[in-house]
Amino acid sequence: MHFHVLIPFKPVNPKTRLSCILDQEEREAFARAMLDDVIAAVTKSAYSATILCTHPFEHEQAPVAVRTEPLNEAIDWALSQFRCAVLIIMADIPLVQAVDLQRIVSTGKDMAIVPGRGGGTNAIFVKNPRCFRADFYGASFLDHMRIAEECGFSVEVIDSFRMSTDMDEKDDLVEILIHGKGRSREYLERLGFVLSIDRGRVSVKRNTHEEAF
Amino acid sequence: MHFHVLIPFKPVNPKTRLSCILDQEEREAFARAMLDDVIAAVTKSAYSATILCTHPFEHEQAPVAVRTEPLNEAIDWALSQFRCAVLIIMADIPLVQAVDLQRIVSTGKDMAIVPGRGGGTNAIFVKNPRCFRADFYGASFLDHMRIAEECGFSVEVIDSFRMSTDMDEKDDLVEILIHGKGRSREYLERLGFVLSIDRGRVSVKRNTHEEAF
Repeated sequence: MHFHVLIPFKPVNPKTRLSCILDQEEREAFARAMLDDVIAAVTKSAYSATILCTHPFEHEQAPVAVRTEPLNEAIDWALSQFRCAVLIIMADIPLVQAVDLQRIVSTGKDMAIVPGRGGGTNAIFVKNPRCFRADFYGASFLDHMRIAEECGFSVEVIDSFRMSTDMDEKDDLVEILIHGKGRSREYLERLGFVLSIDRGRVSVKRNTHEEAF
Repeated sequence: MHFHVLIPFKPVNPKTRLSCILDQEEREAFARAMLDDVIAAVTKSAYSATILCTHPFEHEQAPVAVRTEPLNEAIDWALSQFRCAVLIIMADIPLVQAVDLQRIVSTGKDMAIVPGRGGGTNAIFVKNPRCFRADFYGASFLDHMRIAEECGFSVEVIDSFRMSTDMDEKDDLVEILIHGKGRSREYLERLGFVLSIDRGRVSVKRNTHEEAF
C-alpha cells in the first residue's frame, strides 16, 4: 500500500515543560535530536516523509512544509493534499524503531492508532485520510476513536511502550537514558544527564561541569 | 512449553503513593481489583498462577503462597521451587490482556522481559528460572538485563504500552479511565473518579457525593 509519513514539528521554543532543566537553545537541539531519531526509523523503513513545521526549518533527509495555523488545522490541511494513505507520527517519541512503524502500516483495519501516555495519540495511520480530521489536544485518543467511528473506520489500537513514550517532562528523560539508542540519548549524555536512583525511584540529574570532570 | 505464572501481591497497605486520593481501605480494594484484572488475563489464557503474598490472603481463582521476606527474596524462593519455566508478572498492570501474555510466553529467546515505565520491570518470562534471580527495585530493567547476561540468556524485550503501565501515582489512573475495561476501572468509577482536562492536560478528579448526585 502506498502511503506518506507526516511528522509535525515545532523547531522554535519547543517542550516548554522541560524548561526546568533545559534552556531554550537546548530544548531546540533536543527536539531536533528526537526528530532525527524518528526520521531514522522512517528512512530505515524506506518510507518517505514530510515534516510539517510551525516555523521555517530545514532537514537534509525530508522536505519541510511550513504552516502557520495551529497543529490540528495544519494537519488537516496536509491530509487534504494527500491522495494516498498517511501515517502521522509525533516528533517526540525518540524510542521508536523501524519495526514499530511496520507494525502500524501493516494493519488490516482502515486505521491504526498508537496511544500516548496521558490520553494522547502518538501516531495514526489512516488509509483514507480525506475523510479524517485531527484533534491532537487533551484526551486525543478518545477524540480520534470517536472521529474514526464517525468516519465508519475499523480501528486497530497498537500496543507499544516505545511509541507511547513521548517526552514532555523531566522524568520522561529516564526512558531515553534506559532504552534509547539514538541521537537524543547522545545529546542528553553530552549535556551531563545521568540516571539518579533515590529509594528505589528512578529520575535523572544533570551533572554540572564541576561534577563531571 | 510448560510454565507457571507467579504474581507478587501486597494485600495490606499497598500503593502508598496513591494515599493523596485513596484511603488505606480503598487502596487495598483497588489493588485487589487490579489483581483481578491481571488474573482475568491469566485465566483467559488458561495458564495456572500462584499469588505470592506478603500477608495472609485468599483468592478464589489462584492458590496463595505467603512469604514474609522482602519481594526479591520471596521471588527467588519461589523460583527455586519451580521445575518449569516461570512468568513473573506484576499485580498492578490492570490493562494487560490475554493476548499480551501470549506475546511474552511465545518468545523464541531464553527470556522475555517487559519494561515498566521509569526503569522498572513489569513482567519476566524465564525458561530456566533456577539460574535467575530477581532484582525488582530501582532501575530493575537494567539490573535484570545484566543478570540475564550473567546467566548467558538470550533476551527479547517486549514492547507493550498496556504492560508497561503500572499504577503508582494519581496521574497513572488516567490510563485506566481511558484504556481500562476491567474491575479496576469499575472500582474507580464507583468511587467517583472521572477524567479532568485542563488546558490540554489530562488528569483525574474524584467527584464527591455532593457533586455526583
